[in-house]
Amino acid sequence: MIKSVVFLLGVFLFVSCSQHRPQKLVQVSTIDALLQGVYDGNTSLQTLGKYGDFGIGTFNGLDGEMILLDGHFYQIKADGKIYHPESDVQTPFASVTNFEPGKEYPLNKLSYSGLKATIDSLAPSPNLFYAIKLKGTFEKVKTRSVPMQRKPYPPLVEVTENQPEFETVNVSGTLVGFYCPPYVTGLNVPGYHLHFLSDDKNFGGHLLAFELKSGQLQIDQINEFSLKIPTEGHFLKTSLDEDLSEELQKAEGE
Amino acid sequence: MIKSVVFLLGVFLFVSCSQHRPQKLVQVSTIDALLQGVYDGNTSLQTLGKYGDFGIGTFNGLDGEMILLDGHFYQIKADGKIYHPESDVQTPFASVTNFEPGKEYPLNKLSYSGLKATIDSLAPSPNLFYAIKLKGTFEKVKTRSVPMQRKPYPPLVEVTENQPEFETVNVSGTLVGFYCPPYVTGLNVPGYHLHFLSDDKNFGGHLLAFELKSGQLQIDQINEFSLKIPTEGHFLKTSLDEDLSEELQKAEGE
Ligand SMILES: [Zn+2]
Ligand SMILES: [Zn+2]
Repeated sequence: MIKSVVFLLGVFLFVSCSQHRPQKLVQVSTIDALLQGVYDGNTSLQTLGKYGDFGIGTFNGLDGEMILLDGHFYQIKADGKIYHPESDVQTPFASVTNFEPGKEYPLNKLSYSGLKATIDSLAPSPNLFYAIKLKGTFEKVKTRSVPMQRKPYPPLVEVTENQPEFETVNVSGTLVGFYCPPYVTGLNVPGYHLHFLSDDKNFGGHLLAFELKSGQLQIDQINEFSLKIPTEGHFLKTSLDEDLSEELQKAEGE
Repeated sequence: MIKSVVFLLGVFLFVSCSQHRPQKLVQVSTIDALLQGVYDGNTSLQTLGKYGDFGIGTFNGLDGEMILLDGHFYQIKADGKIYHPESDVQTPFASVTNFEPGKEYPLNKLSYSGLKATIDSLAPSPNLFYAIKLKGTFEKVKTRSVPMQRKPYPPLVEVTENQPEFETVNVSGTLVGFYCPPYVTGLNVPGYHLHFLSDDKNFGGHLLAFELKSGQLQIDQINEFSLKIPTEGHFLKTSLDEDLSEELQKAEGE
């Protein structure tokens, strides 16, 4: 009798222990470290994938833009092409979550600023985190990537001064990213930070601009933020007590 | 045979699942919200105690200073006395962790600035979090508490302008608190934030100054920071995009 009780307990525990999909934004390292050239990866995609199935970031050596969508990693390199990185590839900076699909808001004829205003009006408060997914057809999308860097790594603003930019028209795909509250200054990008991936997986990158024909918007409210801090390498010696808001605006702004 | 396998699996899972003591700094709400009068509790001590056995904070309505030591909560009220809050009491702001005892550093004849310099020299990097515990005998300890507030809640700097301060001599007890890296600005107190609790549980509070006779210092390095964000109440409507470093220095400085 005891063994059958524990038999059920074992199954219950196995199911609950493994099925527990934490609802939080998990971030590796900080944006201010990335701004100052901390491009050495510290977390493998295999590990990152355990924290979520949806997100954005970059790769070891700043080798392109990352998109994590439906549990798959995509790497948009400086040549504008999309690659499928191996699970042992490392990231120096990324933000991921388990995207909980919720209500869908149909949107039409919208640009980046229009999307921000729409989400601002739908979101309960500017002091929470939101995962944002917009799947649709676009008149036009403009993105950028960043080229792999050699050591000694230059600061991010120097890299993005000559960032390769890409533009395409009449494309279907998905906007993937986050809204972060103002108090993440120094940690992550306050406000909106979105990437784009076309359905045919031929076009993508860090989003600069778009004109939407029509699409479905999903907003996933996130009530917990978790920062995984690198315990070795350049991160530990980098000075992280300056206000780099201006550099951030240059590097990540539209 | 299968049942005995699952029997062991169940025991293993039960042990590993329940024994998993996450090694992170778990924080409820933000210091900038507290600075602006968000004093309504949002998390019970019962819940907070699941996140750790060591930490500091305050209580609903700013009713005194919190110390969590060896899994027990203590409340130092504005009368200078120490109370034992019930588990359903709520906190509007607190930081806790599971303290992992490690190396002990014997210290003698030291003041607050001396302690900071010592920890700065022992800590591998200013960019990580550290839980700090110093158990010893003190020539002198000076603390403060904060009085319960009525609505409409005043900002913290107004409250601490008339903070009750306490001083004692020849006392044995424990310093409890954290060092946070500079990038927590807006979220928590960058640098050192310590509270004091006497062994006889008759004296304590937010630490202002001390003279140590002799004691044992323990530093617990923490590589993950987790922010639990209030999802209701005043937090959601409070503007959290200003730089309140000056107010913080006034309210939490020595
Ligand atoms: Zn980006
Ligand atoms: Zn305090």
